[in-house]
Amino acid sequence: MTVRNPVAPRAAAEVKSYDIETDVLVVGYGCAGASAAFEAATAGAQVLVLDRAGGPGGASALSGGEIYLGGGTPIQRACGFDDSPEQLAAFLLAALGPGADEQKIAHYSEHSVAHFHWLVERGVPFKPSLWDSPAWVPPTDDGLMWLGENSWPFTEIATPAPRGHRPTANDFGGKLLMDCLVSAAESAGVAVQYDTYVTNLILDEDDSVVGVAARRYGRELTIRARRGCVLTTGGFVDNDDMLAAHAPRLLGHTKVSAGTDDGSGIRIAQAAGAAVRHMSAGQVGASLIPGFAARGMLVNNHGQRFVNEDTYPGRIGQAALFRQDMNVWVVVDEQGYEEVPERERWGVRPTHVAESIDELDELLDLPPRALAATIARYNEFASRGIDPDFHKAPRWLRPLTPPLAAIDIKAGIRPPSESGTRRGTGASVFTLGGLHTTLDGQVLNLDSTPIPALYAAGRASSGLHGEGYISGTSLADGTFFGRRAGAAAARNT
Amino acid sequence: MTVRNPVAPRAAAEVKSYDIETDVLVVGYGCAGASAAFEAATAGAQVLVLDRAGGPGGASALSGGEIYLGGGTPIQRACGFDDSPEQLAAFLLAALGPGADEQKIAHYSEHSVAHFHWLVERGVPFKPSLWDSPAWVPPTDDGLMWLGENSWPFTEIATPAPRGHRPTANDFGGKLLMDCLVSAAESAGVAVQYDTYVTNLILDEDDSVVGVAARRYGRELTIRARRGCVLTTGGFVDNDDMLAAHAPRLLGHTKVSAGTDDGSGIRIAQAAGAAVRHMSAGQVGASLIPGFAARGMLVNNHGQRFVNEDTYPGRIGQAALFRQDMNVWVVVDEQGYEEVPERERWGVRPTHVAESIDELDELLDLPPRALAATIARYNEFASRGIDPDFHKAPRWLRPLTPPLAAIDIKAGIRPPSESGTRRGTGASVFTLGGLHTTLDGQVLNLDSTPIPALYAAGRASSGLHGEGYISGTSLADGTFFGRRAGAAAARNT
Repeated sequence: MTVRNPVAPRAAAEVKSYDIETDVLVVGYGCAGASAAFEAATAGAQVLVLDRAGGPGGASALSGGEIYLGGGTPIQRACGFDDSPEQLAAFLLAALGPGADEQKIAHYSEHSVAHFHWLVERGVPFKPSLWDSPAWVPPTDDGLMWLGENSWPFTEIATPAPRGHRPTANDFGGKLLMDCLVSAAESAGVAVQYDTYVTNLILDEDDSVVGVAARRYGRELTIRARRGCVLTTGGFVDNDDMLAAHAPRLLGHTKVSAGTDDGSGIRIAQAAGAAVRHMSAGQVGASLIPGFAARGMLVNNHGQRFVNEDTYPGRIGQAALFRQDMNVWVVVDEQGYEEVPERERWGVRPTHVAESIDELDELLDLPPRALAATIARYNEFASRGIDPDFHKAPRWLRPLTPPLAAIDIKAGIRPPSESGTRRGTGASVFTLGGLHTTLDGQVLNLDSTPIPALYAAGRASSGLHGEGYISGTSLADGTFFGRRAGAAAARNT
Repeated sequence: MTVRNPVAPRAAAEVKSYDIETDVLVVGYGCAGASAAFEAATAGAQVLVLDRAGGPGGASALSGGEIYLGGGTPIQRACGFDDSPEQLAAFLLAALGPGADEQKIAHYSEHSVAHFHWLVERGVPFKPSLWDSPAWVPPTDDGLMWLGENSWPFTEIATPAPRGHRPTANDFGGKLLMDCLVSAAESAGVAVQYDTYVTNLILDEDDSVVGVAARRYGRELTIRARRGCVLTTGGFVDNDDMLAAHAPRLLGHTKVSAGTDDGSGIRIAQAAGAAVRHMSAGQVGASLIPGFAARGMLVNNHGQRFVNEDTYPGRIGQAALFRQDMNVWVVVDEQGYEEVPERERWGVRPTHVAESIDELDELLDLPPRALAATIARYNEFASRGIDPDFHKAPRWLRPLTPPLAAIDIKAGIRPPSESGTRRGTGASVFTLGGLHTTLDGQVLNLDSTPIPALYAAGRASSGLHGEGYISGTSLADGTFFGRRAGAAAARNT
């Protein structure tokens, strides 16, 4: 087992003096930290942000930048879609569950349009145009995209409206989003110190958080936070001990992070009595091209279909890892392959090509004629424009005709939510579980009582999420509840 | 949210006097508590056991009584089976994973035969005869049963040997097992007090556990434990808040417990800094008759098979709940139905009966002709004695011929691992996650350092388990690591 820093809290009585003092201390400078810092400073507090890295951004800056917003934003309306807070909430409750946080979802849904305007005021640009095909990250600067809302079973749960809002950038928008948030925070007077790793909370005799101990270039620092400490340190995908204890199925896969998501904020808060939620949950990016999958078929190692191929690709990823143990192939015919523009293929090439279904069946080492039976059944219904088995939308239904290609998702092209095409296991993961917080980001202890002056947001908390995930909900709850946590800490005088 | 007792530890400095003093305090009187108490008393310690109920037994006494033992026990040998610690460990590592505890499994496997003898010395009777068919609980007094060892994929992982050891009882053996363990503990001089609910740990200034606070008939007691405190309070299936936070898929199903598995021991230890593991994991008893399933077919709501029907029924249960959302039917033909003796049917009757496959397909509201295709494929291979799709053993392969019956597992007959036939959701569950412990049952904190004088065993700990489960591994690790915890606490002078 890796030896890590001891996380037990320090007693304030033993801290002789503080190296730094501030009103609100924010630990971690991703989207949640920047949003918290901005609101705390805007509310009049002296704010210091610490990040263990040499600059801002964290995992947020490496992300696609999608923010899950809805309820009737100007971008949705400009693209011709009606939406309401109720429909947004109904979708999120289904998509982020089981175990999604009903209260946070209701609150977020009610204020999502206002949060859109806040982002725009911070300079985040959204273009009023829709990318209208399943994708991890569209190769355009379209500002709106579907994230499963128009796929079964969500079509039966909430009125479909696209809600993936993308900062205007060709390719990945996370960097642009973070540039806007960091600039906003620093314009509001926030101070920042890098290369500083927070190792422990400091508690006074009433178990109120009064500061932190940190390490910078091997030297220990103590920092006093007069009003409160906001933990926005991210999840724990970079901590294999924590994965083994809580989410063993996520072990061994490509880690979606900036390399610093070691769960330190979660652990130092737990050591001070904090409760956690849903530590087993994870987002799974499977290395499949949504355009191929929607136009083709996904089968497991029994040659069976197992999901509607046109749904949100992360939903497919979770099914692939948690239900199919990553034994998944994308099968596509020539027409389907050719229909996907080169720029949407992310360099992915078929791992197997066959002139006939039987030949493909053998190539993939599936049980005899299993794939042939599945394709025959699919084709028969597809020719009538229906999919009684998995409810793929008619738009994507067409009989598959040989020659056929198959792509083994374990071949491990990393999904385009990360740049590059380094080979991995076929899955790229991050954790969803974390600290149990209130709507104001207060960290709750095991008795569901707030730990005084301790706040958290972003993936250091479980946020909106149960076991499900939708792209953009991390940046959404990170920024939204980060803002609330920062404002609440500033008020805690 | 239900308001529960505050679990924060008390400071010893604030406890003026103790109502009771003992060397070793054991909290909970199931199999782990009785085993811990026996060993502590045998080692010369003064031992007090507390239980919140009015008598001993807990969930252990309600269980089938199977204990997972192997490596070459006299019962295995008498039934003609060779086994070794290595084969036992290989099986457990695969069956209890991902995330199974390699170190505990290796240690348990090495000492499993000795543990068998210890049980026999405590008066637990095992009859040297084999029940040779998949079952939750055989309706006989056979002392040995298969628990998936002779089914795929385990046949490829370890040499098959049956390892389910059953105390000699017709029907459920848990009560008999507990009678033996309680009698042994009390003969060894253990004192017991009932109706006493431990609410908090008491810590001295070095964070060493020196006692507990408890409640009895509304009055608070304090109990000093001079050498150590062993938590054997069971899992948390009776605590819906904990299920919602950690294992939301287990919510709403029948709870396999004596009604007192509210996670109190886990929570009071966590509040003292303890780490936990695998809190999302659960055993799932699906309401299916293994004899019907093995002789028939299991299909999901797409009419697809998804598991070899002759494997350990709890493995089917986990697949049914975690992978198929309980949308599972058992399909059996007349011959298969008749082959299962009345006493093995536990009162279960078909929910649907049809003269033809197409009729059954319609009755079950499956996608058109999906079931027909699945049965045709199954029959074709079964007539040749093979199952290339799911590797059911040849012994159970035979083409299914109409008339056919189907049983909706959601119809909710409770599995025979609980007595009675009260209707539920079709799943009966308990939790596997709990405190992180050493081989000696020491409870580890977040820094993987033992919390002084705090021990745990049984389902209050995660024990051997990752996310998988095999019947008998709870009574096995509860008794085995309970013994070690009790002995270690007694040594802690």
